[in-house]
This record gives sequence, C-alpha cells and structure tokens, in this order.
Amino acid sequence: MTLISVVGTGNMGQAIAALVTQSGHSLEVISSADTDKAVTGDVVVLAVPYSALAGIVEARGASLAGKIVVDITNPVNFETFDSLVVPADSSAASDLAHSLPDSRVLKAFNTNFAGTLASGKVGHLTTTVLIAGDDTAAKTVLSDVVTAAGLTAIDAGTLKRARELEALGFLQISLAAAEKFSWVGGFGIVA
Amino acid sequence: MTLISVVGTGNMGQAIAALVTQSGHSLEVISSADTDKAVTGDVVVLAVPYSALAGIVEARGASLAGKIVVDITNPVNFETFDSLVVPADSSAASDLAHSLPDSRVLKAFNTNFAGTLASGKVGHLTTTVLIAGDDTAAKTVLSDVVTAAGLTAIDAGTLKRARELEALGFLQISLAAAEKFSWVGGFGIVA
Repeated sequence: MTLISVVGTGNMGQAIAALVTQSGHSLEVISSADTDKAVTGDVVVLAVPYSALAGIVEARGASLAGKIVVDITNPVNFETFDSLVVPADSSAASDLAHSLPDSRVLKAFNTNFAGTLASGKVGHLTTTVLIAGDDTAAKTVLSDVVTAAGLTAIDAGTLKRARELEALGFLQISLAAAEKFSWVGGFGIVA
Repeated sequence: MTLISVVGTGNMGQAIAALVTQSGHSLEVISSADTDKAVTGDVVVLAVPYSALAGIVEARGASLAGKIVVDITNPVNFETFDSLVVPADSSAASDLAHSLPDSRVLKAFNTNFAGTLASGKVGHLTTTVLIAGDDTAAKTVLSDVVTAAGLTAIDAGTLKRARELEALGFLQISLAAAEKFSWVGGFGIVA
C-alpha cells in the first residue's frame, strides 16, 4: 500500500486522484494553494501547470527529498502555441530534477488527456501511461499504481526521454486544439 | 492524377509505393542508387535513411526545384539510441528545407511503421499519416493521395512541427526496439 499525494485539484489532479482511488492505494489530495499543508505521500504527483512548478520547488523543495515526485506538465508556450518554453535540449522534468536533486523525479501522465485517464480508454484502447525516469524502482512503484487502476503503464526510458514525451504532449494538445481529434481521443497505444 | 516518385526501395519505400498504387495516382519508383535516372514526379518521396539525404541533395537538388519533396526520415543516433543527430532546436525536415529552398518540403510518414502503412491499420485503427509543412497546397496534394489509399491524413501544422514528429518517431522506434509494443503497433490515432 503506497500513499500517493496529488498536489493540484484541476482536471488532471481530479483524474489522477480518481485513478489512485481506483487502484486501491492510499490517496491524499492537496490544493496547490495549501502551501502550509504538509505533503506526506511516498509518491507526490505535481498535478499543476508548468508555470506553478517553480513556486512548489521554492515552497516544498526540502520536504520532497527522498520522495518520488511525478511531473505531469506540458510546458507549452500558450501565447504562441508554437513552441515549448523549456530549452530545446532539455525538458520540464529534467529541469525539475535539477531543482530537486534529492527527489526521485519521474515524468508521467503528460501524454494523457484528463478524460482518457478518467475513463481508462482512448477510443477502444486501454489508456496507456508513459513513464520516464532514471530511478527504475520509482518507475515500478508508479507503474503498479497505474496498472492496479486498470490502465496500462509503459516504461518509456530514462528521464532524458521526457523531452520526447513533452514533444508528444505538445503535439497532441496542438492537434486537439486544432480539432484534428477530440480531447478524449488522440494518441492511443496499440500493442 | 498526380505522379508520385518514390526514391528508395527499402521497407518504407515499398510500403509507400504500394500506398500510391492503392490510391490510384501514378507511381514512379527509383532506387536511391540510380542517381542517373531523372525524377519526374510532381511529388517526390525521399524514402531513404536520414544519412542518405545529403547525398540526394547534392546529386538531385537542382532537379527537385518546384516539386513537393517529402522527408520521411527519423534522424536517430543508432549508435547510442539515446538522441537524434539533428540539433535539438531543428529537425531533419527543416534542415532539408534549408538545403532545398526552391522545393516544397513536407514531413510525413516518419511516425508510421512500414507494416502499418502496408496494412492500413494500427490494431483496429485506420493508420493515420501526420503531415507537417509550410505549403498548405502541397499538404493537400499529399493528403489526397493518402486518403485515396484508404488511410487517414492529418495536417500536423507548419514545418516547425517536424521537430515534434521526429521526437514522436524516435520515441516510437525506441519503444518498439525495447519490445514495449510491436512493429505493427505503436501510436495509433483515435478521433
């Protein structure tokens, strides 16, 4: 039984909280505004926009030491919708790992729309959560939560692959925004 | 009726040639070694590895002026399998467009495994070809060929999006190589 803290109560935070409940693991939900409330989970999912990460690092960085910290962000430049705001040779997750050197940082959920996490389906396909990170044991912990909830998890490689996951997340958001597919469709994974 | 030249006779070249035949448009197949043979198509698909692009530009660059040139490459560093060999803020397609300033360069087919082009299916989903480019009319010409063959085409945006398409292609190849899914599976698109 793992205690999962979900920081953030937006669409993604709600969908990930529901997934944790479905998995049978323990859930703690913390509003991102509740900076006074301690985060006690072994796994902490930062279900916040990219722009909120820096503030969380500042407010909670020390308390996240030793924990598995999951970055779900898509650092899209929402003014231009034409690029990411992180350097081309980096990623939001890599930058976060540099800011939290004592945490076990994973990238996950950024290639999943909230609706597909909630339903567990992309069309007729089971929703797949792609997980990247340098800590194999940490990936296994998160993967076990995802699969216990009935979804599929794939180890997408080291944290370096977060760059490709963020490119995929950006592409998927841009195509949904352009109505090329719906916000409950997009990239599903076929075995 | 558009004449499509496919340069390259490997797995991808064969699959794209079959797609053109299926579409009812005209097909010309040229081995990449046949540098003496003129390319006469209105659309020229360079179905070659990334490493062969520079030689084609050198041998055929002038003759490709005015034509729609389709880059299908995934510029993966196959020694490390851990990065692309193009600069992080560019793409093979953008670099090709700089080398062929008088051609109408598109990125397409790099997110499709050959087997899914041949079958027209990714699992139960119709195979979708993502097409990026700055020339909207050129994208429509290629899209018409793809849809006439019974596949789905999606306009993925400007040529700048080739960067994300190449990230997706790399991710998909790396996951298939790691046996996370098969070479006839991978990322399918759900409406």
